[in-house]
Amino acid sequence: MIRFVLDTSIFVNPDIRNKFGENPTDAMKKFLEYAERLFGRVEFYMPPGIYKEVTHFVELEEVSPDIELYIIKKPPNVHDIKIPAFVVYELIDDIRRRIDKGLRVAEKAVRESVIDTQNVDAIIQRLRRNYRRALREGIVDSKEDFELILLAKELDATIVSADIGILTWAQKMGIKWIDAARFKEVLDELVEKIG
Amino acid sequence: MIRFVLDTSIFVNPDIRNKFGENPTDAMKKFLEYAERLFGRVEFYMPPGIYKEVTHFVELEEVSPDIELYIIKKPPNVHDIKIPAFVVYELIDDIRRRIDKGLRVAEKAVRESVIDTQNVDAIIQRLRRNYRRALREGIVDSKEDFELILLAKELDATIVSADIGILTWAQKMGIKWIDAARFKEVLDELVEKIG
Repeated sequence: MIRFVLDTSIFVNPDIRNKFGENPTDAMKKFLEYAERLFGRVEFYMPPGIYKEVTHFVELEEVSPDIELYIIKKPPNVHDIKIPAFVVYELIDDIRRRIDKGLRVAEKAVRESVIDTQNVDAIIQRLRRNYRRALREGIVDSKEDFELILLAKELDATIVSADIGILTWAQKMGIKWIDAARFKEVLDELVEKIG
Repeated sequence: MIRFVLDTSIFVNPDIRNKFGENPTDAMKKFLEYAERLFGRVEFYMPPGIYKEVTHFVELEEVSPDIELYIIKKPPNVHDIKIPAFVVYELIDDIRRRIDKGLRVAEKAVRESVIDTQNVDAIIQRLRRNYRRALREGIVDSKEDFELILLAKELDATIVSADIGILTWAQKMGIKWIDAARFKEVLDELVEKIG
């Protein structure tokens, strides 16, 4: 049995989704056609947090009950899975450096706002953007992302994601992965071979 | 063999250190007297990062070679030790909330500085304090702290620390611990029983 654990990006990120459909619901419908053809030989999983995110974008009535049948919802078993210490070690080191950088971004914004008191809203917008970039881009920074990684580890499944933070961790933890941007082609090939 | 893994706070934090001595060097000397009396029955460890921190405060010439003999320097084996996934899961969730809080602290400082352009230095001081409190207090936020935890786990040793972040993780990971503030009394008792 081939197993994939799916990230939201496949259905939500416009650059990736548009291979499947013009909007998240159409993309999901198209994906479910593949899943149906591969049923019994390929399994598709989502952890609950990721599934919930996806349902914010997809019209559930239009894709039920197929979405329930072909996307298996399963949380990872966080009490049995273990993480190699060096992965956490690197995470803590990375976060520490990001925290220091976040403070520098904040101090810069304060100094700018004293000089340019009329543009405080623009300064705060820029602060938010730079802060997010410093603290969150490229790391696993949410329980949802981490569940995805853990579920793939538990199932020995392949992660399908476009998120740099997720893919980086997947590689550190010895997890198979496919870039979400190539997923449509992979499914085409799978259907041709075994569908 | 009884084993302890020692944090810097024993020798550096004034409230804790003053039970041992008036300055870090005197505190270390006093501690080494205990260690000498307990030699062969009690082992004291430090991971390299913690040892390095301590040597910034302690006059090494005054405590050598005893410090080398009675404090065993050993890094944890980060490639073999594993961390339960739920501990990392909670860490990621905690950090995510702290990152959001750090941004709110930063935005507040920007808005204050627009109103009170004359006191930018005071605002930045307050920003640093509040940011540090939001992002760093009460979590394991450095490789040094994490090494301490991993070494205690590897050796099945007791952590001696006053750091809330370290003690919280020690408890989550099933590691024995003693509050550094009670360490002097524990050593007195040990010497009495087995010294």
